[in-house]
Amino acid sequence: MSRAEAAPFAYEGLDRVIHEKARLGLLTSLIAHPKGLAFGDLKQLCGLTDGNLSRHLQVLQEAGLVEIRKGYDGNRPQTTCGLTAAGRSRFLDYLAVLERVVRDAAEAAERAPEAAGRPQPA
Amino acid sequence: MSRAEAAPFAYEGLDRVIHEKARLGLLTSLIAHPKGLAFGDLKQLCGLTDGNLSRHLQVLQEAGLVEIRKGYDGNRPQTTCGLTAAGRSRFLDYLAVLERVVRDAAEAAERAPEAAGRPQPA
Repeated sequence: MSRAEAAPFAYEGLDRVIHEKARLGLLTSLIAHPKGLAFGDLKQLCGLTDGNLSRHLQVLQEAGLVEIRKGYDGNRPQTTCGLTAAGRSRFLDYLAVLERVVRDAAEAAERAPEAAGRPQPA
Repeated sequence: MSRAEAAPFAYEGLDRVIHEKARLGLLTSLIAHPKGLAFGDLKQLCGLTDGNLSRHLQVLQEAGLVEIRKGYDGNRPQTTCGLTAAGRSRFLDYLAVLERVVRDAAEAAERAPEAAGRPQPA
């Protein structure tokens, strides 16, 4: 018996680097922008302070999920942050597990619609 | 402009008490079992050690999401753990946000299918 069968709700694929709430928002913003996003835009989209943005980007960068890119906005040099190819792929794998969590829980809630604590027929 | 419009990827509804990976598994197991689950069953379903199970159940209990119930299995007294009505309701609210995360990210990935780092037409 595989571990997934033995512990169907262990959700080992929920990578903690990605699962953290602020980082989940950052990765969702970045997957929509393959050209990368300026720090100010990321901060605003995710409702983060400068300190939190920089802390979480560092975790993502150390894990190889995002990279800082030097580019130009017209003639003006601009630094942006973008997903790496490995980051995109790991985030898509994570999303497949997250989708399974949502589906498992929705199915469970539907099969057991009674309020908690009420006795059920066996 | 509301905060959700200003920061669409802040996901403020992702309650940290619920979002933690092990607790997410515990709540998914419990929502499927309105009569409650014995500790041993919960431990096995979620692939947790005794110590982790007890630590996470304590967090959920202090937040009012789960309760410990004394009952009987036939004639044998049995202690089970179950979702409270408030816990069920908060978990369903959380799941609606999680579903939005999955949808946002899937849509974003579909709109931007190119590999990260490759230049895109403006």
